[in-house]
Amino acid sequence: MEAEMEHFLSTTDWSPDRLDRFLATAAEVKAGRDRRRLDGKVMGMLFFNPSLRTRTSFQVAMVQLGGEAVALTVGQGMWDLEIADGIVMDGATAEHVREAAPVLSRYLDVLGVRAFPRGRRWAEDRTDPVLAAFARHAEVPVVNMESSVWHPCQALADALTWQELGLGAGDRVVLSWAWHPKPLPLAVPLSVMAVAAQRGLDLTVLRPAAFALDPEHVAAAAAVADGTGGSVTETDDLAALEGARVVYGKSWGSLQAYGRPEEEAGLRAGLRSWQVTPEWMARTANARFMHCLPVRRNVVVADAVLDSPSSAVVDQAENRLHVQKALLLELLGATS
Amino acid sequence: MEAEMEHFLSTTDWSPDRLDRFLATAAEVKAGRDRRRLDGKVMGMLFFNPSLRTRTSFQVAMVQLGGEAVALTVGQGMWDLEIADGIVMDGATAEHVREAAPVLSRYLDVLGVRAFPRGRRWAEDRTDPVLAAFARHAEVPVVNMESSVWHPCQALADALTWQELGLGAGDRVVLSWAWHPKPLPLAVPLSVMAVAAQRGLDLTVLRPAAFALDPEHVAAAAAVADGTGGSVTETDDLAALEGARVVYGKSWGSLQAYGRPEEEAGLRAGLRSWQVTPEWMARTANARFMHCLPVRRNVVVADAVLDSPSSAVVDQAENRLHVQKALLLELLGATS
Amino acid sequence: MEAEMEHFLSTTDWSPDRLDRFLATAAEVKAGRDRRRLDGKVMGMLFFNPSLRTRTSFQVAMVQLGGEAVALTVGQGMWDLEIADGIVMDGATAEHVREAAPVLSRYLDVLGVRAFPRGRRWAEDRTDPVLAAFARHAEVPVVNMESSVWHPCQALADALTWQELGLGAGDRVVLSWAWHPKPLPLAVPLSVMAVAAQRGLDLTVLRPAAFALDPEHVAAAAAVADGTGGSVTETDDLAALEGARVVYGKSWGSLQAYGRPEEEAGLRAGLRSWQVTPEWMARTANARFMHCLPVRRNVVVADAVLDSPSSAVVDQAENRLHVQKALLLELLGATS
Repeated sequence: MEAEMEHFLSTTDWSPDRLDRFLATAAEVKAGRDRRRLDGKVMGMLFFNPSLRTRTSFQVAMVQLGGEAVALTVGQGMWDLEIADGIVMDGATAEHVREAAPVLSRYLDVLGVRAFPRGRRWAEDRTDPVLAAFARHAEVPVVNMESSVWHPCQALADALTWQELGLGAGDRVVLSWAWHPKPLPLAVPLSVMAVAAQRGLDLTVLRPAAFALDPEHVAAAAAVADGTGGSVTETDDLAALEGARVVYGKSWGSLQAYGRPEEEAGLRAGLRSWQVTPEWMARTANARFMHCLPVRRNVVVADAVLDSPSSAVVDQAENRLHVQKALLLELLGATS
Repeated sequence: MEAEMEHFLSTTDWSPDRLDRFLATAAEVKAGRDRRRLDGKVMGMLFFNPSLRTRTSFQVAMVQLGGEAVALTVGQGMWDLEIADGIVMDGATAEHVREAAPVLSRYLDVLGVRAFPRGRRWAEDRTDPVLAAFARHAEVPVVNMESSVWHPCQALADALTWQELGLGAGDRVVLSWAWHPKPLPLAVPLSVMAVAAQRGLDLTVLRPAAFALDPEHVAAAAAVADGTGGSVTETDDLAALEGARVVYGKSWGSLQAYGRPEEEAGLRAGLRSWQVTPEWMARTANARFMHCLPVRRNVVVADAVLDSPSSAVVDQAENRLHVQKALLLELLGATS
Repeated sequence: MEAEMEHFLSTTDWSPDRLDRFLATAAEVKAGRDRRRLDGKVMGMLFFNPSLRTRTSFQVAMVQLGGEAVALTVGQGMWDLEIADGIVMDGATAEHVREAAPVLSRYLDVLGVRAFPRGRRWAEDRTDPVLAAFARHAEVPVVNMESSVWHPCQALADALTWQELGLGAGDRVVLSWAWHPKPLPLAVPLSVMAVAAQRGLDLTVLRPAAFALDPEHVAAAAAVADGTGGSVTETDDLAALEGARVVYGKSWGSLQAYGRPEEEAGLRAGLRSWQVTPEWMARTANARFMHCLPVRRNVVVADAVLDSPSSAVVDQAENRLHVQKALLLELLGATS
């Protein structure tokens, strides 16, 4: 089984062709034409952090496929887990991933893990230590339900939404930073940038200079885009909105001041005007607004945008259910 | 679907005739003669407040019908939800019901919501703002699992219990206030009063004057009772116990001092003798004791009452399961 | 139903013969040859304390058998429960087990309860007050998911593991105390000692003198061992490791200083060398290492033991699933 077993940690582990085939399957699942089942299978969902959409959509996905999902919340109803190797565990952590991952593998058919960054040093968080540990020690497929670096189920849902909106190679998507009262993780912007490149889109990351994304990630996405007919650029010029078919709003923290919240707040000061407003949308090519949710109204995006027909956020969230069903069917090798 | 979709927010949204037909269905479900199923359907249960009976009974109801229920607890494993419109969300709330309700509707077949009152101003709480917001923005049926004003699933269970006890038009029920260490919400007494009026019972609310119920609710229930052969009165005279077939014990806070706990405590001072005791029960017509649970023993009701054959509280709680199964079958339009 | 209904509170309620038959059934369940089902049945799991393995393994057990399990956490999403009889409930507890147990019995088919000791007085904890209260007031089978005194599902999994390892009457097992930063409950060592005696093993409890187990429990286990061809002894001499086929590591608190943590810490001072290391294992007869998990690495046991082929902890944890499926089938009288 080991030989064939596959984790799902990032869409970047898949080739653009494989992603393309996956989206075709997801569309079949959504249309109800894919009848494969996972009767009696159980997914475990291990949450180091809160969840609404992820938890509900995975649980419903499993039930609709004939199985079940069980949510486990670390540090709430269970103890904290240790990830570091070789440590003397005489502190707060009572169980090591080296036991937890294989034991859960004996009970479960697939294991989802959500682990946000610790937020102290980007050099540490960018290695995705929790997901990497589970992937190393689990005996069943591990699904990334959002880590420090990636939110690949969101990326799949976004790619399906783009497909449904008719976006193809060369179409213009603006991923725009927005102000927010605190520094947020980078998993969503990094995942959106990566999957847009895989889909051949013309992606611009619109952000103040202090909020530039990790240069290695940008370069990697640009290299993928070279092969798919897309492109990846960064700018702080709102003129980037012109011609956009999609404005994807999202806030994230500055890498310049990662782990230093007071310094980070200084970088954010004076940037409250970075909000997706009707004025921004008016500069686009009749763009749709996207966001991974949850979203702070009138902070990240104006009511007038979210409540207009241009908002695609609910359709986008619905697609989480469909892509996750398709993913579970792939990972668990279900037959029709 | 919108056109046919129906929420369940209060029994007062139903006519007495519809309630009567519903109880006949619930009795069929309880007897196991109603074989309808909800295979593969999923209920979401969104809890802003704790629950034992409600959560367990809805989950078992869905499983027994072939489906599943998933519990989501606001602020514990997920973030706080914003209800107010037009607000700038730069504070504690991270997601708005305008997104949460439609998104959950895309995953779920029915959405239960429990939201106790904020307890600051009755004028605000009596509008049931959280349930109203979900009912407005959800795309699937919303079930009130207890709000500021109503606990309609409890009311249905109570009505089924009265039916099983043989209570009919004109039979005497006393809803008695009891002392409690803190002011409790009004949803249960208001719901019991309303459903008793719908069932044509002769209901007396027995309470100290400072604990009178909302006069508009009393008047509305009395108007319904006019059409069903029942009656609704309030008194602070224990002589009301005479002739009672049921004593329904319950504590609630004073509307006179709503949101002012110290003033409220003053109104409760000296009222610890308001407890359902064997002496009280001895004044009735061999009445059964009812309570929605949880109940504080030897505070709201004496051990000697709860542990006697006159107690109907466990049967009453069991009926939550049966009425909720019947309700889910109605709302989801199941076929046999 | 009362007449035939049975709780599962401790393996010591079963005769050695019954335990032997049970393990044969568990092996059939594990091999997939026992096809009995529990379709539509629901287990409730009431947690007064955290859980990972227990919660997940029972939920998966029920789903694999065609049913479902619902987890309820006391004091988190629900209120605190009162256990004491005759009390005036004007304090923190809002519901009494006298209501909670029968009400849950009306919804559920079987009720698991986890309740760790209060840790104040051993004389109180050794009566297992919470489990006893549920057993007295529930109308469905109660399963002990770990109490003050017993962890019988763990004991069943351990017995199945010994059987799979080929251990039989007279084979040597060492249950060794280990240092830990705080005093832990006694349920696991007491349960392991008891079930080893029932299985006819030659059990030595290896511990510093201050960590001797309850003498009445030791005497009871020794008496059982007299009838099964086994033996039960206690020692603080590491020479006991010689000839051992299994070293079962576990920390527990001292009964000498029960409920007095500062005094207890004094008894533990200087005992950090009590850790299962490769040096300890080298003294055995090529023993396997067992532990109930969670385990603190390099505190209770060295990495070099846990990460070696001699570790049986993951297999042991897996067996929780299989024995619990067999147990649920027995308690719920499933037919094939």
